[in-house]
Amino acid sequence: MLIVMKPTATQSEIDRVMEIVETLGFRPHAMPGASRTAIGITGNKGAVDRAHFENLPGVADAIRVTKPYKLVSKDLRPERSVIKVGDSEIGGEKLAMIAGPCAVESPEQVFQVAEVVAGSGAKFFRGGAFKPRTSPYAFQGKGEDGLKVLAEVRDQFGLNIVTEAMDEHGVDLVEKYGDCIQIGARNMQNFSLLKYVGQTRKPILLKRGLSATLDEFLLAAEYVMSEGNYDVILCERGVRSFGTHARNTLDLSIVPALHKLSHLPVIVDPSHGTGRNYMVDPLARAAVAVGADGLIIEVHPCPEEALCDGAQALLPGQFIELFEQVQAIRNVLQPAEETVALQV
Amino acid sequence: MLIVMKPTATQSEIDRVMEIVETLGFRPHAMPGASRTAIGITGNKGAVDRAHFENLPGVADAIRVTKPYKLVSKDLRPERSVIKVGDSEIGGEKLAMIAGPCAVESPEQVFQVAEVVAGSGAKFFRGGAFKPRTSPYAFQGKGEDGLKVLAEVRDQFGLNIVTEAMDEHGVDLVEKYGDCIQIGARNMQNFSLLKYVGQTRKPILLKRGLSATLDEFLLAAEYVMSEGNYDVILCERGVRSFGTHARNTLDLSIVPALHKLSHLPVIVDPSHGTGRNYMVDPLARAAVAVGADGLIIEVHPCPEEALCDGAQALLPGQFIELFEQVQAIRNVLQPAEETVALQV
Amino acid sequence: MLIVMKPTATQSEIDRVMEIVETLGFRPHAMPGASRTAIGITGNKGAVDRAHFENLPGVADAIRVTKPYKLVSKDLRPERSVIKVGDSEIGGEKLAMIAGPCAVESPEQVFQVAEVVAGSGAKFFRGGAFKPRTSPYAFQGKGEDGLKVLAEVRDQFGLNIVTEAMDEHGVDLVEKYGDCIQIGARNMQNFSLLKYVGQTRKPILLKRGLSATLDEFLLAAEYVMSEGNYDVILCERGVRSFGTHARNTLDLSIVPALHKLSHLPVIVDPSHGTGRNYMVDPLARAAVAVGADGLIIEVHPCPEEALCDGAQALLPGQFIELFEQVQAIRNVLQPAEETVALQV
Amino acid sequence: MLIVMKPTATQSEIDRVMEIVETLGFRPHAMPGASRTAIGITGNKGAVDRAHFENLPGVADAIRVTKPYKLVSKDLRPERSVIKVGDSEIGGEKLAMIAGPCAVESPEQVFQVAEVVAGSGAKFFRGGAFKPRTSPYAFQGKGEDGLKVLAEVRDQFGLNIVTEAMDEHGVDLVEKYGDCIQIGARNMQNFSLLKYVGQTRKPILLKRGLSATLDEFLLAAEYVMSEGNYDVILCERGVRSFGTHARNTLDLSIVPALHKLSHLPVIVDPSHGTGRNYMVDPLARAAVAVGADGLIIEVHPCPEEALCDGAQALLPGQFIELFEQVQAIRNVLQPAEETVALQV
Repeated sequence: MLIVMKPTATQSEIDRVMEIVETLGFRPHAMPGASRTAIGITGNKGAVDRAHFENLPGVADAIRVTKPYKLVSKDLRPERSVIKVGDSEIGGEKLAMIAGPCAVESPEQVFQVAEVVAGSGAKFFRGGAFKPRTSPYAFQGKGEDGLKVLAEVRDQFGLNIVTEAMDEHGVDLVEKYGDCIQIGARNMQNFSLLKYVGQTRKPILLKRGLSATLDEFLLAAEYVMSEGNYDVILCERGVRSFGTHARNTLDLSIVPALHKLSHLPVIVDPSHGTGRNYMVDPLARAAVAVGADGLIIEVHPCPEEALCDGAQALLPGQFIELFEQVQAIRNVLQPAEETVALQV
Repeated sequence: MLIVMKPTATQSEIDRVMEIVETLGFRPHAMPGASRTAIGITGNKGAVDRAHFENLPGVADAIRVTKPYKLVSKDLRPERSVIKVGDSEIGGEKLAMIAGPCAVESPEQVFQVAEVVAGSGAKFFRGGAFKPRTSPYAFQGKGEDGLKVLAEVRDQFGLNIVTEAMDEHGVDLVEKYGDCIQIGARNMQNFSLLKYVGQTRKPILLKRGLSATLDEFLLAAEYVMSEGNYDVILCERGVRSFGTHARNTLDLSIVPALHKLSHLPVIVDPSHGTGRNYMVDPLARAAVAVGADGLIIEVHPCPEEALCDGAQALLPGQFIELFEQVQAIRNVLQPAEETVALQV
Repeated sequence: MLIVMKPTATQSEIDRVMEIVETLGFRPHAMPGASRTAIGITGNKGAVDRAHFENLPGVADAIRVTKPYKLVSKDLRPERSVIKVGDSEIGGEKLAMIAGPCAVESPEQVFQVAEVVAGSGAKFFRGGAFKPRTSPYAFQGKGEDGLKVLAEVRDQFGLNIVTEAMDEHGVDLVEKYGDCIQIGARNMQNFSLLKYVGQTRKPILLKRGLSATLDEFLLAAEYVMSEGNYDVILCERGVRSFGTHARNTLDLSIVPALHKLSHLPVIVDPSHGTGRNYMVDPLARAAVAVGADGLIIEVHPCPEEALCDGAQALLPGQFIELFEQVQAIRNVLQPAEETVALQV
Repeated sequence: MLIVMKPTATQSEIDRVMEIVETLGFRPHAMPGASRTAIGITGNKGAVDRAHFENLPGVADAIRVTKPYKLVSKDLRPERSVIKVGDSEIGGEKLAMIAGPCAVESPEQVFQVAEVVAGSGAKFFRGGAFKPRTSPYAFQGKGEDGLKVLAEVRDQFGLNIVTEAMDEHGVDLVEKYGDCIQIGARNMQNFSLLKYVGQTRKPILLKRGLSATLDEFLLAAEYVMSEGNYDVILCERGVRSFGTHARNTLDLSIVPALHKLSHLPVIVDPSHGTGRNYMVDPLARAAVAVGADGLIIEVHPCPEEALCDGAQALLPGQFIELFEQVQAIRNVLQPAEETVALQV
């Protein structure tokens, strides 16, 4: 059930609806939009009776939701969500650029990249302190020490920190040190973890699983949102296929498909999505051209020495060039004047 | 590094090697086999010097392991592992049959199926108390109450309980009430969870991820074993593909491939592997014919009323018939006489 | 439209219906079955008026077909089709075994294998004279000379010859020298070729394309049948997937799915389906256990010298053993007594 | 073997090398490039002796080719090939736009679209007269009558005609009426057809198979080129995957991968690649951004009445807008000044 409030509804009318939903034993999720607020209801088994709501003051309509996802849906919020991450945002007019090394290896390595990223005008820094590695014998990340280095990057360079958590303990730490909690592709259907991060108050960057369908991807976001955390950023990072020319098959068609169904922002990871240095640049351009709200890019000062995924990392100079080119493409899609007009 | 002990090595010689490995700061993993014990070493970065071991009493050889997996490998234990689960075993001469409903719904439903399963001669009972569901709004399982029902099944019917855990809390509960901890396909690369169950002392049933390669699957088992729990059972349950005639594509070729590389037992789940009632029987026969050590089959007294995955559940009568047929196929592969001879 | 004749319908009543279909400008396809004949109608655009048929003598019913396939469907012939190939048959009580080298290389190589195959009791011999090779620079087959060698195999050993054609010229030659025309996986949707072989009078062995869905596979068979050649044998040979432990992913679940929808026999090719010698035996067993009507197996006297696909060929001794084992499994599925009973 | 001629080599020196190759029983393939000509050799079994060539006048080097493909390779021609199609070209500075209906349905429908396409500044017109349809009962195309309509489009609108052939007879007709012979995805490994079109003198548009690897795709082009037709344009059109949000998964990463290995131009078909009208525009932008040399787009005056693939066709107005946007993106990648400089 979805309660659409009138554009003129007052906050107390909204609160009244919220209370009634709770009284019925369900959970209300208020989504304020540009012209009106909608309230999604979860926790019900079977249909909720419209009669509870349709005659309340401020209520425009009470709509039954038949799709499997509710809170991620455009039915609830017709316009795109802009997610606040630290002191910047993802999903708005500006292309969001998240860049940094695959893994935190040392303060020197991290600061060297952070300087380049900050200098480029990007607002977000990535770097893993907890690394989900296929082998138990591979480098597993620096843990809390790594997170402290990332926190220093925020202090020194003013970059907002996006970093992965793999379990509840990691979530607690990332919540403390970082600005955005990344859930990796292999945990996209770790439902316990999704529920746990749904109870934090930091935005979530949710990567698409290696063979996740669009429905599964949106429902993973729904898991987070159904717990009350509505700040979810979706990230396409390539799917498994038969091909061998790239490490994964970057599925850019999911970007317009997600935007059609959901209000959540969608970014693309061409680094993991291709696994090949020479492909990152063209696929980053393609991702922006297809309409992605941002990119997440791996940069390493010395890729051949990287402890993790060096084959896909860009050199600092390559990254600077890439960022300029993708912004130029973004401008073609969204002329500067129009952007200004929209922001007014 | 892998230390192969002489067939004549004494326990104190083995202990001596174990101590030296620990003194070097590494972790020793002793794998007793039919004719000799081998000791796998993990925790080393780079090669371990053979000189530490090759002249010790009782040591036959010290071999460098170049494959990404060590403890799962036949290099460590050339013969097949037989895993003790409750009072029975998986991987031995007898085909292991694990059967029961997808989810624990009610004591009545569970006992009704348990009676059939016990009557069939099967030794293992399945049933989920924690259900990983694509949607947050779908039935999520009965939790600890469900586990208590399963514990009663063990008491009343003498069946050993195989049931899934999705997080650390769930693992603690399954360890308390069940006999074997199932890790679901969606958690196959939930590395934190793998490490956690590696510290329990209950056997682990590890399902293959929806698009996991053979290497990823074996390395997930290696995660568990590297923490000291060597009792891992691998389970093929179908992979994602383009086809639509079945819910998944059951990849039976992985059974001989796993048996070639690993000493771990391999079972097959034709219920999830096909998602269609009418396919369970033929694919179960195929799984046994291909050489699987066991099957895990969903049975429900009333599939159309099942809260979860009813389309793939067998009726009790269908299950009885299936079990007879697959045992007949098993006997063709492994004549009874030979079995006896091997057991002597 | 599908005209079901009464069990008591006479041949002249059937002929009458056929004539009327032709008069209407459509094409009639008579399918005699165990208890009744059905007549499929193709060539119509839009629905055919039942009134033309329902009151004719001998007509039991006139049914509108809503599925995309008509002639392959069980609606047309409820019982399984048994296809005559040379002096033997595929789809009947006996497991059909087609064996031989991937490619005809020399008379010596071919005769050596043929002797083994004939000695095993198998009734069909395979061997390619036209080889569809990924590279234009790879061995392309011996052409008509190869076909002559195969024809000699029939004469000397009494084996029925199954061999591939890649184009119209090849079809003409295979029709002359062979007993069954194989259409390879890469030509499964070569619709011009399908129509062409639909006009021959030799049975067609149609291999599933590398990423063909069940519908596409059945409709490829429908292409052949719609031209008047009803003798089509379907062959699963593995599909493309992300896995690397086998050359292809053998999809055994398509066997029961095809049998559920279609009356056509289904065989399995575990040689191409796995591409690994050590997997052929277990997957052949699985294919028979799943209910396949036959197998096609590559045998080579000296696989390491094979000009094509040596890695998957069995040695003669391996083949003999395999054939014995799969027949034992077949007997489990279909007790000898019952078989006799059915044949009466 | 690859013979690289000196930049100063004369035509008679080149001819001399060609003759010697022929004398040796092989086939020479001369590829003139910007700075030098290279001569590929095919038809050899095993290595060719360098001594035949290395001391001939005009020869710079004789290089052994170890990759499976020779003539498609950048080793043979380091710079990109520009393919002449009718009176225009594909692979040069200008983005090639091929647009038109999926199928030729009627002269009116075709001329209506042709007027729009010509008006947009596009140089190429597409439209199928022979349609490879999954079902034998679906509309199969207008055949030669359709080709005549297309020939009229060339005469009236000055557009160059790209149209599919499915067999030898069709190739002969397309060669007569059209400017470029399209080989469809389902025929990408119809090797007999590839050889046949390799003997024509019209350029070939080769679509990637539904599950073709990069190697298979390049080797299919090699089949055409090894017969002497060097004018091949590669076309990515989406591959089979598990996803259901689009009809196929458009694999844009193959564009940079092909450009890295091969001198052939690469275009993209976002219409078949997505199968959804609303995705064509974003994916066309992405294709241009990733570096494709052109696009092939389906346009229909009335998609809901299309006899074939209406769900993916653009309306004329949508096409005009798309073409403008992709040209703007192309200009970002390749500033106008630079283009002029390169053309001088």
